[in-house]
Amino acid sequence: MFRYLTAGESHGPVLTVIIEGIPAGLEISEKLIGTDMARRMLGYGRGGRMKIETDETAIRSGVRHGITFGSPITLAIENRDWVNWQEKMAIGAIDKVIEPITRLRPGHADLAGTMKYYQKDVRNILERSSARETAARVAVGAVARKLLAEFDIAIHSHVLSIGGVTAGDNSSVNWEDVEKSEVRCADPDAAIKMMAVIDEAKEAGDTVGGVVEVVATGLPIGLGSHVQWDRKIDGRLAQAIMSINAIKAVTIGDGWDSVNKKGSKVHDVINPVEDPLKPWQRNTNNAGGTEGGMTNGMPLVVRFAVKPISTLANPLPSVDLNSGEKVQAHYERSDVCQVPAAGIVGEAMVAIVMAQAMQEKFGGDHIGEMKRNYDGYSATVGPRNITGELPSNA
Amino acid sequence: MFRYLTAGESHGPVLTVIIEGIPAGLEISEKLIGTDMARRMLGYGRGGRMKIETDETAIRSGVRHGITFGSPITLAIENRDWVNWQEKMAIGAIDKVIEPITRLRPGHADLAGTMKYYQKDVRNILERSSARETAARVAVGAVARKLLAEFDIAIHSHVLSIGGVTAGDNSSVNWEDVEKSEVRCADPDAAIKMMAVIDEAKEAGDTVGGVVEVVATGLPIGLGSHVQWDRKIDGRLAQAIMSINAIKAVTIGDGWDSVNKKGSKVHDVINPVEDPLKPWQRNTNNAGGTEGGMTNGMPLVVRFAVKPISTLANPLPSVDLNSGEKVQAHYERSDVCQVPAAGIVGEAMVAIVMAQAMQEKFGGDHIGEMKRNYDGYSATVGPRNITGELPSNA
Amino acid sequence: MFRYLTAGESHGPVLTVIIEGIPAGLEISEKLIGTDMARRMLGYGRGGRMKIETDETAIRSGVRHGITFGSPITLAIENRDWVNWQEKMAIGAIDKVIEPITRLRPGHADLAGTMKYYQKDVRNILERSSARETAARVAVGAVARKLLAEFDIAIHSHVLSIGGVTAGDNSSVNWEDVEKSEVRCADPDAAIKMMAVIDEAKEAGDTVGGVVEVVATGLPIGLGSHVQWDRKIDGRLAQAIMSINAIKAVTIGDGWDSVNKKGSKVHDVINPVEDPLKPWQRNTNNAGGTEGGMTNGMPLVVRFAVKPISTLANPLPSVDLNSGEKVQAHYERSDVCQVPAAGIVGEAMVAIVMAQAMQEKFGGDHIGEMKRNYDGYSATVGPRNITGELPSNA
Amino acid sequence: MFRYLTAGESHGPVLTVIIEGIPAGLEISEKLIGTDMARRMLGYGRGGRMKIETDETAIRSGVRHGITFGSPITLAIENRDWVNWQEKMAIGAIDKVIEPITRLRPGHADLAGTMKYYQKDVRNILERSSARETAARVAVGAVARKLLAEFDIAIHSHVLSIGGVTAGDNSSVNWEDVEKSEVRCADPDAAIKMMAVIDEAKEAGDTVGGVVEVVATGLPIGLGSHVQWDRKIDGRLAQAIMSINAIKAVTIGDGWDSVNKKGSKVHDVINPVEDPLKPWQRNTNNAGGTEGGMTNGMPLVVRFAVKPISTLANPLPSVDLNSGEKVQAHYERSDVCQVPAAGIVGEAMVAIVMAQAMQEKFGGDHIGEMKRNYDGYSATVGPRNITGELPSNA
Repeated sequence: MFRYLTAGESHGPVLTVIIEGIPAGLEISEKLIGTDMARRMLGYGRGGRMKIETDETAIRSGVRHGITFGSPITLAIENRDWVNWQEKMAIGAIDKVIEPITRLRPGHADLAGTMKYYQKDVRNILERSSARETAARVAVGAVARKLLAEFDIAIHSHVLSIGGVTAGDNSSVNWEDVEKSEVRCADPDAAIKMMAVIDEAKEAGDTVGGVVEVVATGLPIGLGSHVQWDRKIDGRLAQAIMSINAIKAVTIGDGWDSVNKKGSKVHDVINPVEDPLKPWQRNTNNAGGTEGGMTNGMPLVVRFAVKPISTLANPLPSVDLNSGEKVQAHYERSDVCQVPAAGIVGEAMVAIVMAQAMQEKFGGDHIGEMKRNYDGYSATVGPRNITGELPSNA
Repeated sequence: MFRYLTAGESHGPVLTVIIEGIPAGLEISEKLIGTDMARRMLGYGRGGRMKIETDETAIRSGVRHGITFGSPITLAIENRDWVNWQEKMAIGAIDKVIEPITRLRPGHADLAGTMKYYQKDVRNILERSSARETAARVAVGAVARKLLAEFDIAIHSHVLSIGGVTAGDNSSVNWEDVEKSEVRCADPDAAIKMMAVIDEAKEAGDTVGGVVEVVATGLPIGLGSHVQWDRKIDGRLAQAIMSINAIKAVTIGDGWDSVNKKGSKVHDVINPVEDPLKPWQRNTNNAGGTEGGMTNGMPLVVRFAVKPISTLANPLPSVDLNSGEKVQAHYERSDVCQVPAAGIVGEAMVAIVMAQAMQEKFGGDHIGEMKRNYDGYSATVGPRNITGELPSNA
Repeated sequence: MFRYLTAGESHGPVLTVIIEGIPAGLEISEKLIGTDMARRMLGYGRGGRMKIETDETAIRSGVRHGITFGSPITLAIENRDWVNWQEKMAIGAIDKVIEPITRLRPGHADLAGTMKYYQKDVRNILERSSARETAARVAVGAVARKLLAEFDIAIHSHVLSIGGVTAGDNSSVNWEDVEKSEVRCADPDAAIKMMAVIDEAKEAGDTVGGVVEVVATGLPIGLGSHVQWDRKIDGRLAQAIMSINAIKAVTIGDGWDSVNKKGSKVHDVINPVEDPLKPWQRNTNNAGGTEGGMTNGMPLVVRFAVKPISTLANPLPSVDLNSGEKVQAHYERSDVCQVPAAGIVGEAMVAIVMAQAMQEKFGGDHIGEMKRNYDGYSATVGPRNITGELPSNA
Repeated sequence: MFRYLTAGESHGPVLTVIIEGIPAGLEISEKLIGTDMARRMLGYGRGGRMKIETDETAIRSGVRHGITFGSPITLAIENRDWVNWQEKMAIGAIDKVIEPITRLRPGHADLAGTMKYYQKDVRNILERSSARETAARVAVGAVARKLLAEFDIAIHSHVLSIGGVTAGDNSSVNWEDVEKSEVRCADPDAAIKMMAVIDEAKEAGDTVGGVVEVVATGLPIGLGSHVQWDRKIDGRLAQAIMSINAIKAVTIGDGWDSVNKKGSKVHDVINPVEDPLKPWQRNTNNAGGTEGGMTNGMPLVVRFAVKPISTLANPLPSVDLNSGEKVQAHYERSDVCQVPAAGIVGEAMVAIVMAQAMQEKFGGDHIGEMKRNYDGYSATVGPRNITGELPSNA
């Protein structure tokens, strides 16, 4: 039931989101959403735009006196720089001729978008394909995260590599340290090298990518389902992550690395149950928290590759939309590295998918109802002889 | 409009598929579907089950005198071994007590599924979570592939690595050679080593995984869309691929590898247009055929990691569903390596996603109508000054 | 989560249904489904076809030893008359030329379908547009009805009028009497007149329609939602009912009749609460059990108009698909009056919509889990000062 | 692809809509939307609220220089009266205690909504269940209507009856006269009586309902489909119409009245084709423009019943949410008759459903592409021997 649509152009007056299906009884504030919005804007290697984007999110519906009541939530993120764009991006017809952008940037939606929608001005594509749209997703994610927090589910991200510099052992990440790191990396030595690589790329008018890991803890066992392809939770996570701008690869757990290992080294042995309240523990988590298209009670681990930003200060050669002849690609202010920020967007997408899966399993229109259903289920998770009996009428 | 549901248990009487929304006028035969079904069953390292599964697919609706006419298509794949399972898997209530499976296999849906659905017999989970379900998807994929073939879109797959053995340069793959290879590998030397690795694993009662690449050629530019997260074609591909059993990672093009490269080395420069009928060529395809969530006219390249099969002849220790105590994991006949077969399933999922995207863009209820719409669009793809005018009333 | 697709042609080998998302733990048998299938085939005024259609429904997946376990359910209804159609309706290409039907019947899908799908043989449309498809829906409805029965929700139908003959006071219908009536009418006097009207129409080579009422009792308050147009339960019921062949009008409660009354005469006054376990009673039910797009705890009452069957033994003039010239409309064996049967289909559609709404509200993957959630909610329905406290953490 | 979500409370700061999937190249202006918004606010018998609601709709995204370019469209309708509600409806937590509404109004979402969402203040339900939400739908409908206008499809509505007063013969309605009528009735004599009935009800503190007819002309043959229940266009229309506040019955064409006629009197004979460019004419349209779940080329006629408004100036007795004891129902400013306005909302819903069906059939991402596909199809509609050949490769 948790569904949403985002709207708005990068330089348009406002980004808007409508979120439908959030249960009643949830405390949501502009400040709460603002926290994640601010986290997205940080990160070493961001360009000048981030300074403009102080990104205050206004709640315009669905929350009353600080609490949700079941109605759709509207979020609006005004563009602080709109005054400088109101002619170029005017909603209504204007008398003046605005010079179209016709130089096609490789690595962007420019070419495919202008062909698909039959446009003559690349701006009509780039305004919506811009990563600015992910700000709206982060706002949605903040709401999803709040819903999950009611069940003690937490979602974090950290950077595993940037520009070829890889963080060391990440078996035990201190999330507070990550929040303090300018590159959101838990390994301080690697972080210094990552920043050096970013500086170097900046000087060369180039860009760098990297790998991010999102970890969700506290998820119950059994979200998603094995019974139909489109209900598998790993597939739904993969779509959500891959839909983020600049993400070109996603893996659950050690998926990408485990292909070179034998099966006996990959699977996560289930421990004998010692505590009926905490059954089904394991010492390893190569599977990254999903088996058979369902969460398995272990932390969910999703990793993804962020490609180097396509917009280069030192542009690659390209072609002109009208003539088909060689030109320099268009350059619009951009970042050198958005890997840390992509982590925040990844957290948001994981939060949304998990909130949806929670609602499917537990139903409920008020957070108290959802919790009661959750508690009832939790009591049935465990060895069949020890815990977990359903009501006798089942 | 192309949507489908699959049903059926691994050892039940029949796998069934209903496909909805296929245009009229398409030639579909049981033989056509049979070709892909047979390709899925091949591959070095498959167990005995594959010999039982001769897998003839019967068409039960939606095709008349060899041609579709718009009605839903039913496909049925009978289980040749049903006679041996009709008690254990009886649909109706039976007098006899069937011994439940209670040993939980790590890496499978066993644990999460029994908890989620409150089951006391693991068979009620493993029957549906089995990779046998992918046979149904391959049947759907054969229909999608036929639709795409009408537009000269072809989909192939080959194996990039198995058990740590990696194929050499794959810049130019001969698809006929791949079809002849027992491991579906274009590099004959690597193929020999791959088979050796499989043999070795088999002797050790172990399993191996690998990496597969699916390539789709002939796709028009502009499938999918950049305007909303769930319309991005790369996200939809990622979900489709990740939903395949044992797939834990997916990348579009060089996504996973390109993170260590600079932006200037990753993006695919667009060439000046020489032939208005073949505009927008590029010399590289690191992006794997998508930009901004749309196809960009280059071949679509999707790679994915197949984890080593979770069912080991030499089982890992596990726990009992009832007692929570330590036991050996349950073993049911299984393969050592299903990487080549996963490629056929991957082809099917890519074909389905692409057929859906084609229908969204071109509409049409008869294949002739869809083609007419496609041709009309194709004439507008190109530099705006040279080709591509829309009707004057646009 | 409860979703389904039906497939199959009227004279094809088999009708098939796949139902997805039924919770585990539900007792389903072929006999159970057979009961509703038989009820659909009865009714005064049915043609010869009904005798062929003994319609045994085979369960082919999703049920094991009589119980669901969460996997998709496949239902197959074989065509007993297939032997006589296997050439005309052959799946594969055949050597023989089959004479196409080209006379267009008004009131059917013939014209619109042949244009839409560019067909040259009307049979390719009429086979799927036939009311035979509703047999598949009745089978789905039987499963939905069983799920609802677990919550003491019952669904009945009776005929309010046929061919202008209207049943008397129906404020208190005896459902057993309805089941015994050949026209499914609770008023025995009206029933006799209805049968006379049917006989008369039959002699004239004509057909008659009528009005049916479906009543669902035991539904909890609060299914559906007022918050978004597509979640309103009355809208979803309207779609489900109007999608039945020959249904051209639908009303919830007294909707169609109440337009001539003043507001003060239409609304159903809520009684003061006397029994906290049975709160929110009313003496009238003009609203038919829904308010604001939600069930309101009163019986759900849905009425719909069944138009006279379009296929007349004494055919109307029509035109030829190829020449556009005047011809007699094609006649294929048909009924004089399908109003009673439409009631069974109406029950099925109401059952499906309500089962879906129950799942949305209560979630759950096992019927026991769903019940536990339902019970928890039930305890909160009532005056806020008397019953209905949520857990303190809510 | 045309999908939308509405959000916003009746007395909240703003109603917001996001519309997704509108093709590029469509001229949309705030003025265009304003025309329909103004039409909705007119009508004899509206209360004081309508004067406050001057309802200017701002476009906030998806339109640039007056033209759509494929991106989601955001529409915002500010509440001119917000200044008087910013405490009662404050988004954020406030120090002051706001007196809750606890008197339950029959005929509204009050009871079911408070139970479902576990609310203690009826305002948290009534704010969203208010018919104010239909303003947002009218705004969406204006966009859909513009898309349809590109294909010369026009949508009108007129009032057939109010409070028992029925308009005379409406076989030929002059739409300009309807627009001038205060009750949107084409029969000036009936209109005078209708207004008298409204006056009378107003004096009595009561309300009246009525029947509205929406007519869509210019639709192509073959929208919707007969092949699956949820694709039938009549079902989709029924859901869309029944989802409107206060609508409790819907009929396509003469559906509700034709039940008392014989089949031979109901069906619409197809005329022999005289003009290949205008084939498939009929002299009658009892079916209301749909057959077999598809448009049939005749005008689409949808009628629906608007119940008398549930909020009475002279309130009915009701019960208190907290105590369950008898009280007077809550009264908030309301209208005596909203039948004419309901017609505008009905037009909007029909426009949306038809725009969606057009997109499904014709695809296309630019209005020019959609038109080209439409023109190609149009040329194939007709007798097979005369017009309508598909390309030879079909």
